[in-house]
Amino acid sequence: MKLAVIGLGLIGGSIAKDLRKAGFAHEILGVDASPENAQAALRLGIIDRVETLESAIPKADMVVIAIPVDKVLHSLTRVLDLVSDQTTVIDVGSTKKAISEAVENHPKRRNYVPAHPMSGTENSGPSAALEGLFEGKINIICDQEKTGPQHLAFAEKMFQVLGMDIAYMTADEQDHSTAFISHLPHAAAFALANAVLDKEDREIIFDLASGGFTSTVRLAKSSPEMWGPIFQQNKEYVVESLDVYIKHLKAFRKSIESDPEQMMALMKNANRIRGILAGDGDSLVKNERTIVKLYTK
Amino acid sequence: MKLAVIGLGLIGGSIAKDLRKAGFAHEILGVDASPENAQAALRLGIIDRVETLESAIPKADMVVIAIPVDKVLHSLTRVLDLVSDQTTVIDVGSTKKAISEAVENHPKRRNYVPAHPMSGTENSGPSAALEGLFEGKINIICDQEKTGPQHLAFAEKMFQVLGMDIAYMTADEQDHSTAFISHLPHAAAFALANAVLDKEDREIIFDLASGGFTSTVRLAKSSPEMWGPIFQQNKEYVVESLDVYIKHLKAFRKSIESDPEQMMALMKNANRIRGILAGDGDSLVKNERTIVKLYTK
Repeated sequence: MKLAVIGLGLIGGSIAKDLRKAGFAHEILGVDASPENAQAALRLGIIDRVETLESAIPKADMVVIAIPVDKVLHSLTRVLDLVSDQTTVIDVGSTKKAISEAVENHPKRRNYVPAHPMSGTENSGPSAALEGLFEGKINIICDQEKTGPQHLAFAEKMFQVLGMDIAYMTADEQDHSTAFISHLPHAAAFALANAVLDKEDREIIFDLASGGFTSTVRLAKSSPEMWGPIFQQNKEYVVESLDVYIKHLKAFRKSIESDPEQMMALMKNANRIRGILAGDGDSLVKNERTIVKLYTK
Repeated sequence: MKLAVIGLGLIGGSIAKDLRKAGFAHEILGVDASPENAQAALRLGIIDRVETLESAIPKADMVVIAIPVDKVLHSLTRVLDLVSDQTTVIDVGSTKKAISEAVENHPKRRNYVPAHPMSGTENSGPSAALEGLFEGKINIICDQEKTGPQHLAFAEKMFQVLGMDIAYMTADEQDHSTAFISHLPHAAAFALANAVLDKEDREIIFDLASGGFTSTVRLAKSSPEMWGPIFQQNKEYVVESLDVYIKHLKAFRKSIESDPEQMMALMKNANRIRGILAGDGDSLVKNERTIVKLYTK
């Protein structure tokens, strides 16, 4: 099948690599606002041809949109305007509510699958694309009843080829969950980096940075061009998550200052994360949500 | 040489493993408050014999104290009371000011090397001990002028065998730097875990936890028995670091809510961490502190 990838960065590039390797995509057309990125993707063998949006879309069996979420808002309508009835359109951004609402009444709405494959690194651009990035991870599909069955099945098959499990929920649920699970940790890392950089003139020695610091602050290296629009589009839930986090930080700070017993209790409560995190226990069983294990290599 | 290790957990066990493997320690005596831990360390081949503090210390050429920092406060004096002039005593806890002040006037103060090898994992106990845990990491030695030259040289040699670089500073500088570089990220992770657990009854789906969340919250699995005393002993600087962090979180939250331009600027500033983190650039060169690269395999 012919795949068009719009946005040849970490996510779009990684999807293209895996779908080619698995023989799922036989020809990959690449579209990118940056001619340098497009040429780099071509040089890296991620895509077969650089095309414009207008030339690529009518030829494609599947279109994957992997650009910053503010750009998706503008591009998705244009893509749906151009596709044939047979073409499946998937956007893989981190926010889903504003984007899916924007095409709510589009005549081609049933061609569209709002998705969020939950994987990534702090790096960006075509050279950051990795094989196997999505293997064993969860992909969210939103409001699946609004997508035509053949398009839904084709998208599910694609995520299956990437080695992903699929969770189904509303766009609103996805934005709320993702605010806490993904957007908040990123915001926390940006602020942590700024806090430590703030002290640079004093006694802080970055050479000391041990594994703990490095892994905690890793997300602070993430691209502002990608994350700014996510924070803006999911503002309500991100601000809610930050308020909850700040409340817990203040409580922990206060307990360190004046209530060691409470401090111990708060750490013990936090330790529960060990049993709850996927991979550490049977959280799939305990969780009532529908997660379909489609395929794991 | 004969090594006595007091505290057979992640740090003490990992030091013992490497020093035996390198042939630096020919006999390793283990002391632990928990008989189960001591027997586990013996079974795992980490130590040669389980001993009491009183029986082990007089025989040892080097004593490594690797127990929670509140326990160090009580044990170090006892150890120094028992050692011969030839025995070097090293404590490897995460805080140094309160501990070194406690033995400031001890007649064997010159046998003592206050150290902080900056490495670890979120796991604990003898079974968590790892070979190569310290390789390429930084060890801090505090107030080196207060240690006798032969004891300092012996300790430096030991950290060299572990593959570590050494940074020299005062105990106060170490506690301040470590508050930001290590204690703050741990406090932030505990609070982040609690914030997300707080939302468990709502829409949060832990199965979604992607790499970003997992790595950010990893430190929240750390042992309260180890971290409680660290937060208490370094209360002043930990609370300062939390205040700075909360200030930056609030500023970031506010920028998301009402000032996207400022939000982008804050993320761009946080991105500077990429160039500053050890391993990413020439931070050793830019930094004016004395870090001695003793040895890297």
